Amino acid sequence: MSYNLLKGKRGIVFGALNENSIAWKVAERAVEEGAVITLSNTPVAVRMGQVDELAKKVNAEVIAADATRVEDLEVVFSTSMDVLGGPVDFVLHSIGMSPNVRKKRTYDDLDYSLLEKTLDISAISFHKMLQVAKKMGAIADYGSVVALTYVAAQRTLFGYNDMADAKAMLESIARSFGYIYGREHHVRINCISQSPTQTTAGSGIKGFDSLMDFANRMSPLGNATADECADYCITLFSDLTRKVTMQTLFHDGGFSSMGMSLRAMDQYEKSFDKYRDENGNIIYG
Amino acid sequence: MSYNLLKGKRGIVFGALNENSIAWKVAERAVEEGAVITLSNTPVAVRMGQVDELAKKVNAEVIAADATRVEDLEVVFSTSMDVLGGPVDFVLHSIGMSPNVRKKRTYDDLDYSLLEKTLDISAISFHKMLQVAKKMGAIADYGSVVALTYVAAQRTLFGYNDMADAKAMLESIARSFGYIYGREHHVRINCISQSPTQTTAGSGIKGFDSLMDFANRMSPLGNATADECADYCITLFSDLTRKVTMQTLFHDGGFSSMGMSLRAMDQYEKSFDKYRDENGNIIYG
Amino acid sequence: MSYNLLKGKRGIVFGALNENSIAWKVAERAVEEGAVITLSNTPVAVRMGQVDELAKKVNAEVIAADATRVEDLEVVFSTSMDVLGGPVDFVLHSIGMSPNVRKKRTYDDLDYSLLEKTLDISAISFHKMLQVAKKMGAIADYGSVVALTYVAAQRTLFGYNDMADAKAMLESIARSFGYIYGREHHVRINCISQSPTQTTAGSGIKGFDSLMDFANRMSPLGNATADECADYCITLFSDLTRKVTMQTLFHDGGFSSMGMSLRAMDQYEKSFDKYRDENGNIIYG
Amino acid sequence: MSYNLLKGKRGIVFGALNENSIAWKVAERAVEEGAVITLSNTPVAVRMGQVDELAKKVNAEVIAADATRVEDLEVVFSTSMDVLGGPVDFVLHSIGMSPNVRKKRTYDDLDYSLLEKTLDISAISFHKMLQVAKKMGAIADYGSVVALTYVAAQRTLFGYNDMADAKAMLESIARSFGYIYGREHHVRINCISQSPTQTTAGSGIKGFDSLMDFANRMSPLGNATADECADYCITLFSDLTRKVTMQTLFHDGGFSSMGMSLRAMDQYEKSFDKYRDENGNIIYG
Repeated sequence: MSYNLLKGKRGIVFGALNENSIAWKVAERAVEEGAVITLSNTPVAVRMGQVDELAKKVNAEVIAADATRVEDLEVVFSTSMDVLGGPVDFVLHSIGMSPNVRKKRTYDDLDYSLLEKTLDISAISFHKMLQVAKKMGAIADYGSVVALTYVAAQRTLFGYNDMADAKAMLESIARSFGYIYGREHHVRINCISQSPTQTTAGSGIKGFDSLMDFANRMSPLGNATADECADYCITLFSDLTRKVTMQTLFHDGGFSSMGMSLRAMDQYEKSFDKYRDENGNIIYG
Repeated sequence: MSYNLLKGKRGIVFGALNENSIAWKVAERAVEEGAVITLSNTPVAVRMGQVDELAKKVNAEVIAADATRVEDLEVVFSTSMDVLGGPVDFVLHSIGMSPNVRKKRTYDDLDYSLLEKTLDISAISFHKMLQVAKKMGAIADYGSVVALTYVAAQRTLFGYNDMADAKAMLESIARSFGYIYGREHHVRINCISQSPTQTTAGSGIKGFDSLMDFANRMSPLGNATADECADYCITLFSDLTRKVTMQTLFHDGGFSSMGMSLRAMDQYEKSFDKYRDENGNIIYG
Repeated sequence: MSYNLLKGKRGIVFGALNENSIAWKVAERAVEEGAVITLSNTPVAVRMGQVDELAKKVNAEVIAADATRVEDLEVVFSTSMDVLGGPVDFVLHSIGMSPNVRKKRTYDDLDYSLLEKTLDISAISFHKMLQVAKKMGAIADYGSVVALTYVAAQRTLFGYNDMADAKAMLESIARSFGYIYGREHHVRINCISQSPTQTTAGSGIKGFDSLMDFANRMSPLGNATADECADYCITLFSDLTRKVTMQTLFHDGGFSSMGMSLRAMDQYEKSFDKYRDENGNIIYG
Repeated sequence: MSYNLLKGKRGIVFGALNENSIAWKVAERAVEEGAVITLSNTPVAVRMGQVDELAKKVNAEVIAADATRVEDLEVVFSTSMDVLGGPVDFVLHSIGMSPNVRKKRTYDDLDYSLLEKTLDISAISFHKMLQVAKKMGAIADYGSVVALTYVAAQRTLFGYNDMADAKAMLESIARSFGYIYGREHHVRINCISQSPTQTTAGSGIKGFDSLMDFANRMSPLGNATADECADYCITLFSDLTRKVTMQTLFHDGGFSSMGMSLRAMDQYEKSFDKYRDENGNIIYG
């Protein structure tokens, strides 16, 4: 179903890897809504993933680029302007990775050169993207930029490790740059804080299935899916949200505003089943 | 311009008084986007205001009701279901008034029976609306409810008085009821925290013009207008935001995320002009 | 152990019922730290509880008063000034009760006259206390006021019901009045958001034991006890925190900043034990 | 005046440069309160500043160290344990600097190698400190760690530049590490978000005087001084705050909870004096 919400708009989607990726869904939905787009991901991702398949489907050029390299980003923006016929109206940043998590370094045993990489890939790449775009005039006035984030930026989740700090920094960059890009070009910059999602990125995290289950039971509307996230992105790229900026917007079925749901607590209580006495009281001893 | 975002949807808009009202704009935009609606306001407002004019324009029935009275709300929902042909898909709560402000009672000299009225009109009416609707099955599954709020719920602004406490309570009701209505009927409930707006309600507040100016200079995108607020409401009523709930969503050009802008500080510094010495330093003595 | 942190200070402690009450512990600790105090609670609580026992122990006069009545509060402050020899330096508000919870009315079936009482007892009483004190000059310049609150003001917890809205309003009153009392008399006003605590008040809530267990496992330092809360109050009453105001201060072992702890998740996972297949995977079907 | 709040405690104070430094005041107050401490700052700061003067005054050893180097931090902790006779009970992190600000690079023209330095000095140094300490067992169980931060972590202030992102990351590190250090050793980790303060660090920022004036007029209690900040630190190092962790604690006279004060608005309005017509209305044209 299409509303033509992005009719005539140009955009760039960073971070689509395969059909589970949120960025993939955003690309599909943006085009359905009338946008023309380019796609960008790392050279490795482009080779290994199914980006070309998506590109065909949405009739988009793929621009391989390392988003931590300014020169690469310049190519993405200049190529996109060429291909699409002018400055872009929207950008999606869906990029994040922690080499510390991959190498199973715990948060109290971080490798600091890997931490630098986590930050560079997951947060500073967003600043680079915005700085490059602004210098090149590559985002049109009244454009809209969205980065994907996670509630770990506000609250600690075991195992999320240095990605929490990277996400906190990412959200700060959205505010800091949102001020400048807003006052000078009416460009708005927001983060969507999405439910835990079964993507390639999400599935790397320890105890992820249980966390998904818990988040789902905590959230009155259940976890938000990648498809639903794409729908939400579309509204933020549309002209209907022109005064929303510098925000972290929770798209999580209500999780972020929950302290405890009955459903999650019911499940939690079952964990004590075998530790109950004949009256149903929990035996701790 | 219409996207048909609300095609086939039914809604109720509470609080449209005249063409400056945000609720008025929301009513117009909702109908433009394909919805059928009813309008409700107090009997006095219906008599004194221009609600009938709006009703004609958007082809809507007006249901006079005191939103602090459960029986009146029951009539609003039952009539709406009758007129519109079924349970509604969206509701706007744009209701707020402080008799303490009107009577020029300062916050350290509140009349407590007036405070009760402030709360009843500005916050509890929202709970009553939701409770009545839920009991009557008057909001369809996957429906969306929005209430208008102000940043005073988080940060104190002189002269906003007991409305700040009412708004804090309003936002809490959105969370508390959002949990229950979400888990049982997938109904989502959110607040939009809007820039100070030149409406009849807004203009009652002391020093309002200066505050508007300050907010405008602080916000990188400037203050959000009533029209823009209506656009934002439409996205929240649409099917594209189905997993956003229990949130306070700032629609304020960035104000809520600003500590100090250059533009506001430039203006602020001018206030010292006559108190500067020959070197441009501020003379406090 | 005493540091004489409150040497020479006068205070009023509202809400001590029995030795489990946080207010009781605060009264004891305040006196240990060198303060002289009065105690206040409702006439019923004074008759039924052990307030007189505490009064003897800490050498304090008990002033029975209904904190929802302005006249009663006037008596508390005037008597306290008489007995203690001048305006007070600190006040503790530890008052909260929901008749809706007591009557087992769920949040989607509230009795609105009971909701008024919840608000009056749990939130508006705080405003009345401050307004009365300010009019009477009953709190000395640079005084400190603390009210106890709970994280339900920010995040919904099933069963906490209309107390969540009351606590949200309470915290707003602390900000609204903190601004006025601060600018005019340097009086600071803060809320302490305390872990769930095994007091008479706490134990009324549905599923409270499981919630305590969950909160305890989520919090890296475990739940904060009533004794620890009293210690924290002392620091806020002391001269060492004179520029802290209008804040909600979390005293909860870290709970408010947690998304998920390993310890809580370990426990949660046990709930699925009987639903696992031979490979340890959860069977949902 | 001393309360002996830190009697028998050992501590390390990072970042004292001269008598305007908050860290300097913390060192003085900690010793007054009965602690024994060591001081650490960069080799350059030790040579150029007045650290030795402070060291003499508070009878503390100075350990020159670059807090971005793990090996240096290891020396600080091992030397401190040697000198003080065991693991420390408290640590102050008062370290921050942006080479981008120094080089007058604006936020939309950052030098990325300088950004890395900003982060390394102002945020990652905190993680290194904690990781080194934990590995060495250098902080005693129930110890307390405080880092100084600024409201720019939540709200954008023009000219604060990449320090905003660094502070957001710093506060995230406090949460992330607070979880781990808390669950394993009951060590609590908090940030104090302090008013703008006339220190060597603060005075580097553009338009700082006007910002100080504005913050002062916005804050009902006025800006917090370095001395007052030191007092607040003492309470957090004491045994009276053992369950406070993973928090950003605002010590700012109320600024963070203010939207607009009458006093600031009065001043702001003066800026329009020469742009008013004969009726006192603002002339924008």
